[in-house]
Amino acid sequence: MSEFMQPLELLIEQFRRLPGVGRKSAIRMAFGVVDMTDEEAERFFSQMADAKSRIHSCAVCGNLSEGELCPICADVKRDPSVICVVEDPKALLAIERVKQYTGVFHVLGGTISPMDGRGPDDIAIPQLLHRIREGHVTEVIVATNPTLNGETTAMYLSKLLKPLGVRVTRLASGIPVGGDLDYADEMTLLSAMDGRKEIG
Amino acid sequence: MSEFMQPLELLIEQFRRLPGVGRKSAIRMAFGVVDMTDEEAERFFSQMADAKSRIHSCAVCGNLSEGELCPICADVKRDPSVICVVEDPKALLAIERVKQYTGVFHVLGGTISPMDGRGPDDIAIPQLLHRIREGHVTEVIVATNPTLNGETTAMYLSKLLKPLGVRVTRLASGIPVGGDLDYADEMTLLSAMDGRKEIG
Repeated sequence: MSEFMQPLELLIEQFRRLPGVGRKSAIRMAFGVVDMTDEEAERFFSQMADAKSRIHSCAVCGNLSEGELCPICADVKRDPSVICVVEDPKALLAIERVKQYTGVFHVLGGTISPMDGRGPDDIAIPQLLHRIREGHVTEVIVATNPTLNGETTAMYLSKLLKPLGVRVTRLASGIPVGGDLDYADEMTLLSAMDGRKEIG
Repeated sequence: MSEFMQPLELLIEQFRRLPGVGRKSAIRMAFGVVDMTDEEAERFFSQMADAKSRIHSCAVCGNLSEGELCPICADVKRDPSVICVVEDPKALLAIERVKQYTGVFHVLGGTISPMDGRGPDDIAIPQLLHRIREGHVTEVIVATNPTLNGETTAMYLSKLLKPLGVRVTRLASGIPVGGDLDYADEMTLLSAMDGRKEIG
């Protein structure tokens, strides 16, 4: 386990906390830090901490944002009557990359997960309800991942929002079941967006 | 290029400075940071900066060390009359992993490289000379990588140290030419150590 001196192990351990980083990569990166001068390393970490501190959540949709509102919510050319609901900002970016969707977004920050005891109030569903009640929303496109929890969340939203007179749709075929929206190619996302269907 | 918001691009850019990190891995890691709370991220980066600041160089051999002397130089059971010369601390660790070598080390911090205008005084060769003149060194094992610069450095050390009555040896066969000592398996390193030969 403790193959290296303690502060080096600590660096390796911290790098391993990042997604997709195994011990070998963590060792390589830790030695990259060791090879920096003290000044370089200090700048390296403080610049990253500084950058992270500048990334906030949009007060309206929960998207990543430097200011109060994200660029999408602040854009008057986007149609606020169509809201695309996603699990996280990565899924939002995947859809934006297609450059076809002109509505706005709502980032849930997760899914309903009965197994983990995570209910509608533990993700940004109350905020979504608030937006729908306050604004003139005609359609909610549920773009949660096609996983068990994603489908559960979609069904829940459908039952919750239809009584409010909102059209609730779901991204259609194209995304492999059990997969992650994040890794879908643009054509797949486009066809999924085109083929979206009303839930229930 | 600027696919993401500026502070996110900055995080990605910083991660890419680490060895072996491509854009895809950097994006994955940057989102890992984004997913942390502000407090978690602050602790994450400050702990790493703190760990790095605790990693110094041994005053005698140049190995990574938390104190004035590294654990090897401080160990009275190690034989100070045999010095194994390596390019960097990673090579030192590779040899230590074999658990056979009982002498001490000297970390050069690179190689002589005429192409890059790097001469003997730009790496820790003066310090090595000083150790040999001050102590009772009988053998210097040159374990620089079997690359052009590594061989150049080995030949230089041989010519420099032999007149001082020191036996100068070189790690033997087993390490693939053009390869990196760091990636050699233990058996290969062991046979290279056993088969070491006098230079020149």
